Amino acid sequence: MKLSQLDTPVLLVDEAAFLRNMQRMQDIAMAAGIAYRPHAKAHKSAEIAKMQLDAGACGVCCAKLGEAEVLVSNEINDILITTPVIGISKLTRLMQITNKAKISVVVDNSDNVAEMAAVAQTCGVKPDVVIEVDVGQGRCGVVPGDAALDLVREVAATEWLNFKGLQGYQGSIQMLIPFSERDAAARRAVGILTETAEMIRKVGIPVDYLTGGGSGTTLTDATAKGLTELQPGGYLFMDSRYREVEWDDGNPIPFEQSLTLLASVISLPEPNRCILDMGLKAISSDGGPPLPQNLPEASFKFAGEEHSELSFENGNCPLKLGDKVSFVPTHCDTTVNLYDRIIAFSGDDVVDVWNIAARGRVQ
Amino acid sequence: MKLSQLDTPVLLVDEAAFLRNMQRMQDIAMAAGIAYRPHAKAHKSAEIAKMQLDAGACGVCCAKLGEAEVLVSNEINDILITTPVIGISKLTRLMQITNKAKISVVVDNSDNVAEMAAVAQTCGVKPDVVIEVDVGQGRCGVVPGDAALDLVREVAATEWLNFKGLQGYQGSIQMLIPFSERDAAARRAVGILTETAEMIRKVGIPVDYLTGGGSGTTLTDATAKGLTELQPGGYLFMDSRYREVEWDDGNPIPFEQSLTLLASVISLPEPNRCILDMGLKAISSDGGPPLPQNLPEASFKFAGEEHSELSFENGNCPLKLGDKVSFVPTHCDTTVNLYDRIIAFSGDDVVDVWNIAARGRVQ
Repeated sequence: MKLSQLDTPVLLVDEAAFLRNMQRMQDIAMAAGIAYRPHAKAHKSAEIAKMQLDAGACGVCCAKLGEAEVLVSNEINDILITTPVIGISKLTRLMQITNKAKISVVVDNSDNVAEMAAVAQTCGVKPDVVIEVDVGQGRCGVVPGDAALDLVREVAATEWLNFKGLQGYQGSIQMLIPFSERDAAARRAVGILTETAEMIRKVGIPVDYLTGGGSGTTLTDATAKGLTELQPGGYLFMDSRYREVEWDDGNPIPFEQSLTLLASVISLPEPNRCILDMGLKAISSDGGPPLPQNLPEASFKFAGEEHSELSFENGNCPLKLGDKVSFVPTHCDTTVNLYDRIIAFSGDDVVDVWNIAARGRVQ
Repeated sequence: MKLSQLDTPVLLVDEAAFLRNMQRMQDIAMAAGIAYRPHAKAHKSAEIAKMQLDAGACGVCCAKLGEAEVLVSNEINDILITTPVIGISKLTRLMQITNKAKISVVVDNSDNVAEMAAVAQTCGVKPDVVIEVDVGQGRCGVVPGDAALDLVREVAATEWLNFKGLQGYQGSIQMLIPFSERDAAARRAVGILTETAEMIRKVGIPVDYLTGGGSGTTLTDATAKGLTELQPGGYLFMDSRYREVEWDDGNPIPFEQSLTLLASVISLPEPNRCILDMGLKAISSDGGPPLPQNLPEASFKFAGEEHSELSFENGNCPLKLGDKVSFVPTHCDTTVNLYDRIIAFSGDDVVDVWNIAARGRVQ
């Protein structure tokens, strides 16, 4: 099947660029002698998770329990859930998948630890628990230092939980420019995590698992000496926003924009503008409006949930009815979450279809 | 089952408010002696479409062919597709459902008319065609007057297409304040459509179908003498943004906010703030950030795809781990499109589950 035969809007991935991204992350991790556990929240696909494991990943991360359930049912067997799992209902679900696969989960709250231990005992399973430390993002996570140590002591003292290590993720710096500032902030984050680990070791509790990092700080995360595992997600697809973000050598980040959204012209109301079949339901807007590829003279605007408009100032619209226009999403994670499948292509040919089996699994 | 037993984030609808909204639209249409064909793009659910038909609707609208396919396969038998359907592949799909149900489709382009007629002839079916006229929105639609007349002549002269009438939708005024301006703009839109219809009638082509209107202009649309059919969508759920939009008597629009998103506290990193399990994948942001219900002192911000934060200035966060917080979406259409089902509740009880079967059907 040819790309030109696909109905639109359709979510596409350039398979070669995608595979190069996968290999580059493996190369970076190998060179640094560090494990990597890519974040499946970016793709929510069992097929892609399997490709990442085949490429050398030690497991995957999931943001939500519901994602992990879908991946476990598709034979992904080593998963870290990077968001706290709260309440008896979800904790019971957690124990159910812990019976079937190697599951770790983050915690940052003492009440959650107590409830998790009680549910674990009831279910007769012992999950691996990772303490989330706030390394600068100001979102979830226990305060580094004494508070973290107190929570580690609680977990380590709990018969039905297995203390595995620490997580520290600094998401807010992933696109920080210039590189020097991003690099310094990522080193601070790794430093906070390693200092907290050292403090814990001093009281006799072994800590040999420190997980964290993101696609924009991968190089720093991999080489800053501290993390034992990287958890990048966006590197496979790369938001268009990463275009401005440079690597240490001043070049762009060496992961390519592999994901595109293909839309069609469905109306030509005036000579200088056209309407596309791609609105707010077809590509996410939370990272800003997307830009059309190969149409530098076009201005884009959303025109509701089902439409968008390209206008051409001082000129005529060069597009005909039915013509295709492609866009790189400004935010791939939230765009992927709108679709049930991704079409992989090579040149003009469709080469594969990957199901986004965990799409919408927000619980 | 009780609401408190549901895992979060979960999409809820207050069934009583929802049913009152449904009845109010029926009452408005009845009082005006006009048909209504609610827009299924708002809910994408066959169950809800059936309820609307049972309440008195003459059929439903769909924004996309893919939505219509899902509804036809769920025994919804009268559908207007309100966006142009372009290209041989989609036109063939259109003829397939036209074989099974009463399908109308809008057109605004001569090339599309010619291609549709060719595909219709090949498939041996004769779809109903509605000319979309731009009544002020500046999106799709043929220019009113001569251009519209020319396109109507083409359709009417085409053996394999059945000219049904005109569509004019002015989406950009639905939340216009004050009422007087919204009312005047809606009357202009209806006026443009009726003048174009009159022009067409003068050349001997009957026009007895004029469809258009929206939830924010329903009262004007129903009484402005011109439309034969209303096509409101949002009235069932009502975006929170409609709260500021008043009716002609100075009171709020008489449709209630029935849709809510229930989220849970999953982290309490500091005394003055908490983190919820609801991020950009769980509620849409294109209409602005949502506000928590019953927490006037809280400031909301998104904290990524999976999290959001409530902060309490000069005070302590009153919420505990696992506490539930509900939100009215600023934009219901794009929020519904993130979910596979809506839970209907009454008081504390879950009373029904409606599948969003056409979720993600953007093609």
